[in-house]
Amino acid sequence: MTESPFSSPLVKTVVIVGVGMIGGSLAAALKSRNVAERVIGVGRDPRRIESAREAGLIDEAVTDIRQVISCSDLVVFCTPVENLAADVQAAVADLCQTVADPGSCNSPKLPLMTDVGSVKGSICSQLTAIPQFIGSHPIAGSHRQGFEAANPNLFEDRLCILTPLPGSTADSVRRLEQFWQAIGMKTLQMSPEAHDEALAMTSHLPHVVASALAMTLSPENRHLTGSGFRDTTRIAAGDPDLWAGILLNNSQYVMRGIDDVIHRLSQVREALARNDVSEVRHQLAVGQESRKSLDGTKNSTT
Amino acid sequence: MTESPFSSPLVKTVVIVGVGMIGGSLAAALKSRNVAERVIGVGRDPRRIESAREAGLIDEAVTDIRQVISCSDLVVFCTPVENLAADVQAAVADLCQTVADPGSCNSPKLPLMTDVGSVKGSICSQLTAIPQFIGSHPIAGSHRQGFEAANPNLFEDRLCILTPLPGSTADSVRRLEQFWQAIGMKTLQMSPEAHDEALAMTSHLPHVVASALAMTLSPENRHLTGSGFRDTTRIAAGDPDLWAGILLNNSQYVMRGIDDVIHRLSQVREALARNDVSEVRHQLAVGQESRKSLDGTKNSTT
Repeated sequence: MTESPFSSPLVKTVVIVGVGMIGGSLAAALKSRNVAERVIGVGRDPRRIESAREAGLIDEAVTDIRQVISCSDLVVFCTPVENLAADVQAAVADLCQTVADPGSCNSPKLPLMTDVGSVKGSICSQLTAIPQFIGSHPIAGSHRQGFEAANPNLFEDRLCILTPLPGSTADSVRRLEQFWQAIGMKTLQMSPEAHDEALAMTSHLPHVVASALAMTLSPENRHLTGSGFRDTTRIAAGDPDLWAGILLNNSQYVMRGIDDVIHRLSQVREALARNDVSEVRHQLAVGQESRKSLDGTKNSTT
Repeated sequence: MTESPFSSPLVKTVVIVGVGMIGGSLAAALKSRNVAERVIGVGRDPRRIESAREAGLIDEAVTDIRQVISCSDLVVFCTPVENLAADVQAAVADLCQTVADPGSCNSPKLPLMTDVGSVKGSICSQLTAIPQFIGSHPIAGSHRQGFEAANPNLFEDRLCILTPLPGSTADSVRRLEQFWQAIGMKTLQMSPEAHDEALAMTSHLPHVVASALAMTLSPENRHLTGSGFRDTTRIAAGDPDLWAGILLNNSQYVMRGIDDVIHRLSQVREALARNDVSEVRHQLAVGQESRKSLDGTKNSTT
């Protein structure tokens, strides 16, 4: 499934800013599928980014995006969501004289830019002045960290959501869709708001719930856990810094989701308190039906 | 791992009451490891229990435990937890004239008896008059149902908790431990109360949480779920009737667990509402540490 579908690369130079697990997997996918002629990695730590180059994930390693932005065709920002808008603004600052003024950033030197952040509203609303930026969220991931965990097949058959804004050109959107499709993804367009509202329920809330359940485990009960407990809490092992950024950048929808799950838990609790057999059964049957509805649909990793 | 460790069977005749996924897996394990000379299955539905015999899981199929109890060496009740105590009492009624009188059931014709129920307090407290009964909980399972899902390796390397009472003889406890160990399990003794308190947190609460999270999924968001949502809700696909019985028979401890998880969820919600980055990170880090503590310990399935 990873043989090269292109005889010649789709994109000449791709710059990946932040070569961790996701950025590294993207680099590996681009190389294994011959999607990019040259992959440049950008990292703050000179030794880490050089190690990624030595590992063969990237062709060139630099520590400052401004060194390479004007000679790139596509820049993918894989930095933490709370820094992302600032990272994009800093990257284009030299090429755009007044970023704060919408429409001022139509420098012909600016490449197409995107990101991989799990939230889109807070990022895209800060970048409306840069029409070359279109938000992306490839729904693929792992609780592992660092480029050492890079996996060239991470994106295969998964869904990538694009969140173009009114200022995005149809040509840019099409090129970006082709890019994600070239590494094996399906693509879907949504507004940043609709994305955040939906992903709060399907990705961010499960993280909070798994984490809360993991917190209830006392050390003396560890040896009494089965695969039920382990599966239900697996994603709680994810990076707290990364996830705090995601949750805080989508806090309104995540809080609404927490309220929803607390309400459902309270309903089960009330039925148990009343010893109401048919109501407990009914509630569990609703959960079972909802879960079973997923078995037919194939998808993605978060 | 499933070659026979015994040159001659450990037990002559084992009766399994209720040949579903668990009972069927037990029968398959006994046969593949040559633990029992003869395995008799008891089921209410004559066609179903005959099908289990035709499938080779059991040697004989009967519809009434009373036909075979006096010629068996060990009876394992695999019926739903809410019926279990009554099923045992009905099985021994002919051999014990006054079950209600403690100590009256020391008929030499009574075999050693046990069960596989996920709750122990409510069952064991109703069976104190029958010292030949010792509760067991093999922590192994699947969300699949029926003897067609039987798996002879289901119990391998998993933990079985035994809950002997003061009236249990040391010899009976030893024989029962040997039985579970013979199908590859580790054994541990606990009081019924301690078992229920611990399993409420490690098995029953995760089921409620997974179910509540599954309930929050709207049909239009199904295609936006990743493996995070799927893993966190996997056990919600379990049988609602089975799980309602478990939760209602351990409702005090389960309700306490629900209160605990609601409290943790509320704390995350409050930190999000305050936009308190360090507190959100701290809470997620507590969940992460708790979850990672499980990676070193090997265990069981529920």
